[in-house]
Amino acid sequence: MTLLQGLKILDLTRVMAGPFATALLADLGAEVVKLEPPQGDDYRHIGPFVQGESALFTLMNRGKQSLVLDLKDPAARTTARALALSCDVVVENFRPGVAGRLGLGPDLRDEKPALIYASISGFGQTGPDAHLPAYDLVAQAMSGLMDANGEAGGKPLKVGEALGDLMAGLYAGWAILAALYRRNATGQGATIDVAMFDALFSLLPTGHALQFYAGRAPQRVGNRHPLSTPFGCFTCADGQAVIAVLGDRQWQALCTLIARPDLLADPDLASDAGRTEQEPRVRTAIEAWTGTRQVAAVVAALAEAGIPAARVQTLAEAAASPHAQARRLVTPLPHAVLGQAPTIGQPVWFDGQKPVAPCSAPGLGAHTAALLARIQARHDH
Amino acid sequence: MTLLQGLKILDLTRVMAGPFATALLADLGAEVVKLEPPQGDDYRHIGPFVQGESALFTLMNRGKQSLVLDLKDPAARTTARALALSCDVVVENFRPGVAGRLGLGPDLRDEKPALIYASISGFGQTGPDAHLPAYDLVAQAMSGLMDANGEAGGKPLKVGEALGDLMAGLYAGWAILAALYRRNATGQGATIDVAMFDALFSLLPTGHALQFYAGRAPQRVGNRHPLSTPFGCFTCADGQAVIAVLGDRQWQALCTLIARPDLLADPDLASDAGRTEQEPRVRTAIEAWTGTRQVAAVVAALAEAGIPAARVQTLAEAAASPHAQARRLVTPLPHAVLGQAPTIGQPVWFDGQKPVAPCSAPGLGAHTAALLARIQARHDH
Repeated sequence: MTLLQGLKILDLTRVMAGPFATALLADLGAEVVKLEPPQGDDYRHIGPFVQGESALFTLMNRGKQSLVLDLKDPAARTTARALALSCDVVVENFRPGVAGRLGLGPDLRDEKPALIYASISGFGQTGPDAHLPAYDLVAQAMSGLMDANGEAGGKPLKVGEALGDLMAGLYAGWAILAALYRRNATGQGATIDVAMFDALFSLLPTGHALQFYAGRAPQRVGNRHPLSTPFGCFTCADGQAVIAVLGDRQWQALCTLIARPDLLADPDLASDAGRTEQEPRVRTAIEAWTGTRQVAAVVAALAEAGIPAARVQTLAEAAASPHAQARRLVTPLPHAVLGQAPTIGQPVWFDGQKPVAPCSAPGLGAHTAALLARIQARHDH
Repeated sequence: MTLLQGLKILDLTRVMAGPFATALLADLGAEVVKLEPPQGDDYRHIGPFVQGESALFTLMNRGKQSLVLDLKDPAARTTARALALSCDVVVENFRPGVAGRLGLGPDLRDEKPALIYASISGFGQTGPDAHLPAYDLVAQAMSGLMDANGEAGGKPLKVGEALGDLMAGLYAGWAILAALYRRNATGQGATIDVAMFDALFSLLPTGHALQFYAGRAPQRVGNRHPLSTPFGCFTCADGQAVIAVLGDRQWQALCTLIARPDLLADPDLASDAGRTEQEPRVRTAIEAWTGTRQVAAVVAALAEAGIPAARVQTLAEAAASPHAQARRLVTPLPHAVLGQAPTIGQPVWFDGQKPVAPCSAPGLGAHTAALLARIQARHDH
């Protein structure tokens, strides 16, 4: 059986954070019914599009069933409520308060205490900023993440992916699974409240150590290491390589490799502190060597010398590597319009298998008739 | 009861990825026994230090018990194995193969099929790159994350936090909890394999959409939005604010707010595409207005006008905000040496509570005697 076989989830979410949470659970075999308004999830209308299908919607909604209901209609709200009460888990990422006004709020648990009800939002269901909109940019800015990211001496930089959404989604799935553990022991469900802001703040331990223990504000360091030098990204003839020299022994190995005994003999560069102070000089010397060599040759020579190094890969290079193929990072899944849809499933291997949903995202309302018939049949019995 | 009450975890992990996974589970009430070598987890020896205690170790090991065993001693290995077989979950983040050589590998499940055995590594337990070291820098470089992060036109940039470690840890906890769901239904445990590389690759959906659907390599955009302008970080009199103008209606509101009817009337700036093309001119106009105002005034005026905006907060500002206080982002926990240790627990609220471990990290071997006595007593019975 799949890991989450028999687990029924009503998915009221849209755009990214909530859909990501439930897609990961669908990969493990949960039955996810995605309730959409007649116009569909907003993400169906966001590009890039292929044959009219939104790539992001397709990626984020693999393995789900689509049920279209117009929740402005009271009869549809009654149907949705009945469906919610027949599930193990309800997930929503409306603005705080909206789900309740639709009759689909956490008070569903008054009727079914075993229900696990999870809300995902920008800033949580409580607190003075709970009303702020769930924009990833805003969550990154306010959480401290942007302040930690960027070049040394540069401006705060948004991370190049919507990490606020993704982290809230991943934590939501984690929390739902933890609540299922307790439900198994006690029969009791849970009301779960996950915020993008809280999630991002919790993921900055390097900054926490400096700020809350050493009493120093963390500084942006770009590709540098706060303590070790040389460390970071170096230009090679055909691309970039990262090199991490951690400690004096690796420094010796590096100087030997690049045939610079003069650097090794220089007392100013004998310690990490000294090398950090003279970073530009160290970098110039290394790039004089890397700049005339291919990335592959640089990485191989450094590995031979016992120094951590790697190619900075584009997404296409990462996906095409023999390792990525062996780890099945990209899975083609059947899709009604696209035929096959490349899918990046959950990344964990269980018992030598990598579980991914059996099919890609559904067409809008593709399962409405079947699901309504099922709900009706349940009602008639 | 706590969410994970009664769940017993043997934690063989060190440094960051594994300890982060188990700390999150300790927050939810799992009993985590951390097995350390006589010299302790390497992280005990990494600064910054306060009163001789490592801040990062303290943050990453809240709520755990410390058991010191020297696994070079065959008798200690027998003890560790007995302990592992008495637990629900074993977590390790050695290099692939090391745990097995210590008699603590996934073949523990031959003896106890219900055991959940989780391995965390840089590149997984299988595949041609499985031997590569689990450096965060290497995982970020090879996964495509670095290539997605950085200024437009700049170099690939490591994200300013060890996201490879943290994501592998968070996914590991998620996978363990999913395996517990199946164990409840079937009695069957699981062998789990989480890689930093796979985890980071799975967290780049914006790039996946471009690369695998639109066939375009994703480009670094810094603080810019790929489609909307103005969007990003703007200099105010006393700091930085992010501003997100999404669509023409918000552009009109912005031009009205900053009293620039000329921009609004300019046909070159009438569309997102036009504004994106003329971004420097748009930025200059906005910063002429923001640059003479305090961040708080800028954010308030934009909110009033219906335009998403926020202060770029340092970690200290984020933690001190009334909202962060209401959401209890930082929890002081009792610590044997430090008295109180500021702790950033798991970020999710359950049933109106925020569960965090009851105490901070243990002293090295603080629980050795008690745990050995318990193992001995179990053996005697």
